[in-house]
Amino acid sequence: MIKVKRIDHVAIAVADRDGCADGLTALFGLAVGAREHVAGQATDVAFLHPAGADGGHPAGADGGQATLEICAPKGNASLERFLARRGPGLHHVCFEVEDLRGALATLKAAGVRLIDETPRPGARGHEVAFLHPASTGGVLFELCAGSSA
Amino acid sequence: MIKVKRIDHVAIAVADRDGCADGLTALFGLAVGAREHVAGQATDVAFLHPAGADGGHPAGADGGQATLEICAPKGNASLERFLARRGPGLHHVCFEVEDLRGALATLKAAGVRLIDETPRPGARGHEVAFLHPASTGGVLFELCAGSSA
Repeated sequence: MIKVKRIDHVAIAVADRDGCADGLTALFGLAVGAREHVAGQATDVAFLHPAGADGGHPAGADGGQATLEICAPKGNASLERFLARRGPGLHHVCFEVEDLRGALATLKAAGVRLIDETPRPGARGHEVAFLHPASTGGVLFELCAGSSA
Repeated sequence: MIKVKRIDHVAIAVADRDGCADGLTALFGLAVGAREHVAGQATDVAFLHPAGADGGHPAGADGGQATLEICAPKGNASLERFLARRGPGLHHVCFEVEDLRGALATLKAAGVRLIDETPRPGARGHEVAFLHPASTGGVLFELCAGSSA
């Protein structure tokens, strides 16, 4: 067993990152955080932050709150297949863990199929790794280490 | 525009609530919170809570952190169709808002298609309402009011 600290983000797969980010921001009063190209994942992403309990959009990236990640393929074949098959929609949930390498070793020893055997560079300077949904009830989970910067 | 305070939960649709809840709990060190039958939604649900930043599972239901909701149909035809078509997987994201009725009125005036025109009883004593994914980029969003109890 590993120890998940929190849900870092929930990712939505779309073809048009900025169109989706702007649309959801306008409806739900979210704040757009980082927009970046993630070379290691061949995606363009944007993070959308809820306003927080006081409505003031917490200082710092996410104030420890889960965010939405809007994720569009820029060469990511898996994400392109997802969009072709299902259209835009919920894609994965990212858990923050303390020790990413240790977590991957523990999960592998427990028989979990790993998409990434070792951490890879993700958005916002994080190291990330994906687990295969066949081992996690059909849901694609990502693990990330460190606090959001 | 409405003001979303936070992501309350991310829901996973499954056929076997307890099997999924126990499996994810065992892998990820989550704590099982409320398990209940939600008559108004014709579902059985369970909430899984991450450990929190200090690893100690915050006091109270979720310590203001987003949780996973495991959601199995008990007569819910829409959820049964989802499972038949796609199998188990990510189903919806629930945003907490301050004023649910006001939020629905604002979204309706903005042209958003509502599944629930008025709030309905949801899990954990919350009032909830779903928005139609056709208006929100293909993602099913739920709104809930009040803090998690």
